[in-house]
Amino acid sequence: MVYAYTGPLAKLINEFAKMPGIGHKSAQRLAFYILSTDSRTKDQLVEAINDVKENVRFCKRCFNLATTDLCDICNDPTRDAEKLCIVAEPRDLIAMDRTNIYRGMYHVLGGILSPVNGIGPESLRIKELVERIQSEPVKEVTYAFNPTVEGEATIIYLNNCLRQFTLKTSRIAYGLPVGSDMDYADETTLTKAYEGRINI
Amino acid sequence: MVYAYTGPLAKLINEFAKMPGIGHKSAQRLAFYILSTDSRTKDQLVEAINDVKENVRFCKRCFNLATTDLCDICNDPTRDAEKLCIVAEPRDLIAMDRTNIYRGMYHVLGGILSPVNGIGPESLRIKELVERIQSEPVKEVTYAFNPTVEGEATIIYLNNCLRQFTLKTSRIAYGLPVGSDMDYADETTLTKAYEGRINI
Repeated sequence: MVYAYTGPLAKLINEFAKMPGIGHKSAQRLAFYILSTDSRTKDQLVEAINDVKENVRFCKRCFNLATTDLCDICNDPTRDAEKLCIVAEPRDLIAMDRTNIYRGMYHVLGGILSPVNGIGPESLRIKELVERIQSEPVKEVTYAFNPTVEGEATIIYLNNCLRQFTLKTSRIAYGLPVGSDMDYADETTLTKAYEGRINI
Repeated sequence: MVYAYTGPLAKLINEFAKMPGIGHKSAQRLAFYILSTDSRTKDQLVEAINDVKENVRFCKRCFNLATTDLCDICNDPTRDAEKLCIVAEPRDLIAMDRTNIYRGMYHVLGGILSPVNGIGPESLRIKELVERIQSEPVKEVTYAFNPTVEGEATIIYLNNCLRQFTLKTSRIAYGLPVGSDMDYADETTLTKAYEGRINI
């Protein structure tokens, strides 16, 4: 019999390999890291994993991640409550907020429409979005989704739902990423960049 | 204040980012995996981590990883006890054994000589190696280290230590990896390949 990883180590490699972007080789490396690290570091990791599962939940208002009923953004009185940015996932919210140019509120849909994957409007937090706009002083809505066919379809669907309100609506621009090379841009991006040209 | 990951999620991202080959982005992805996975998968991961730390130890004879006093290889009566392959780490042992051509025993040094990193002969399991060769019926020793300057220095040092015994000693060959392109090989590899040419 060829000798291979057995017992606890094989099991740990297997568990790590279930994680996204972790192949068998990386899983091996992570397992050896656990094996060689001191018990304190290991305990911190285990605690952090358990802590996330136990204490992170969704904000009751915007469905961002939170440790209390409302998230840090909904609890922030300096945020402009007239502006609402709609994103698919909490990570998109963080990417958007990192720009530091948008200082309004957010609404996390929990995904985008994707009939192929069985994600219809009822799987997303659209009802909650409509209720928020009814009860909150929102005047401007900005869609910030990945620039894909599904993203665009979701924008069209949502904009229909929100037509009943008097709102300024917009989506973030598609175009050339800053610092990139026009020569390497694909035609779709360049088409979008042309369509979205800015008067100067 | 720009909103960023806070609380348990930030802590978990931080713990994941300590792991080798895991940058901040990957750590984020892993943390979201933990957040979205079911509790059972999470528990399996945590248990596997704890299990490795609690139950994996070194084989008392060859210092391979083991869950009992002796590892699976030392416990295997079909192995040729006259052959001993010396490796730096348990993962090298596994790589070597996967070839299925070598069916002897192993000795895991626990590293290779590296004066720059403060690893001298006393940090490695060399005394234990000498004792094994004294008491076991070893007739042939093969060094299987990474083809680096430190690897070569370790071979020279060990071969000196083992000069007192009547042994056939060898190291695994350096040369062109099978399936590679000569044209892309670096000069050092090609030099080693020429020096190690095989009569046909």
